[in-house]
Amino acid sequence: MATTDKASPRERLLDAATELFYRDGVSIGVEALCKSAGVSKRSMYQLFDSKDEVLAASLERRASGYAARIAAGVDDAGTPRERILYIFEQVEKVSVEPGFMGCPFLAALVELKDPEHPASVVARAAKERMQDAFRVQGELGGAREPELLARQLMLVFDGANARAGAKLETLDGLTLETVTTLLDAGGVA
Amino acid sequence: MATTDKASPRERLLDAATELFYRDGVSIGVEALCKSAGVSKRSMYQLFDSKDEVLAASLERRASGYAARIAAGVDDAGTPRERILYIFEQVEKVSVEPGFMGCPFLAALVELKDPEHPASVVARAAKERMQDAFRVQGELGGAREPELLARQLMLVFDGANARAGAKLETLDGLTLETVTTLLDAGGVA
Repeated sequence: MATTDKASPRERLLDAATELFYRDGVSIGVEALCKSAGVSKRSMYQLFDSKDEVLAASLERRASGYAARIAAGVDDAGTPRERILYIFEQVEKVSVEPGFMGCPFLAALVELKDPEHPASVVARAAKERMQDAFRVQGELGGAREPELLARQLMLVFDGANARAGAKLETLDGLTLETVTTLLDAGGVA
Repeated sequence: MATTDKASPRERLLDAATELFYRDGVSIGVEALCKSAGVSKRSMYQLFDSKDEVLAASLERRASGYAARIAAGVDDAGTPRERILYIFEQVEKVSVEPGFMGCPFLAALVELKDPEHPASVVARAAKERMQDAFRVQGELGGAREPELLARQLMLVFDGANARAGAKLETLDGLTLETVTTLLDAGGVA
């Protein structure tokens, strides 16, 4: 873990939650979480109402970082079409890294099976922000139906994440080729 | 549940496993599983080595039923293109039923996070059979690259299942429109 001893208990809990929930799933226990963070249960409950709140906060922090990283690269990427393709280049690149398990927000939603769970609310908002970003780029790129295109791109994005994360697929250009077809058909030159 | 008192303990366990794992996730306990099945833990362990084996067997049974249902409809559906679209019509239809949580095989893979788990092996085989079926229909339909097309269709299939199951998307023709674009681009008339 990248945590240093100087990190606050809150940061250490969020770092541990980010790593453990992603690697092992949302059913990981408070015991294991606190042990990995080097924080007492008492301290955890002083900082958060419940394990669910730790999970929600860890996804929230991850969503901010993710959005910032994507936005940074996207701004450099040129035309709207290139910006959209850039996102999928990133997906393909990340998907072959060791420990890749797919999109953490989608995984949390699939595992929690409860749209009202505080972490589901955070995860859904993160997915909606990405769909909005696709729609905006589609609009800028002259898509005939930007909302339809954004929903199609999310199908590909989440299908690719789920399949590569579950070791069903190695991508290797698959999303770029698929997205190119959808951009062509959707009028994004 | 559709179980009758006449069902064997094995069938009752598989019925309960199918329902509970799908609805609540793979972390459901042996206690809850046996209680729902009306079977003692002793009986469960006489029939299965572990809860993992019950999960694997329930997915195996589900995969057989699923393949049979799809095959039955597909045979009636006309051209290869119509057969492929038929599968997505079914996805869209099923996705609005109460209790829909996406593809049970994909969900198990996402939740288990372990490709070697006996249930992951069963789930992966089920997904591979579906990809094979798409490839065969693509070949019959004159696809330029049947394997590429099959992988694209699986991206859409799994993306749609994950997103509709997680209440991120309502489909409503989205997969049919997307698949039509991919079939057109892939040369399946």
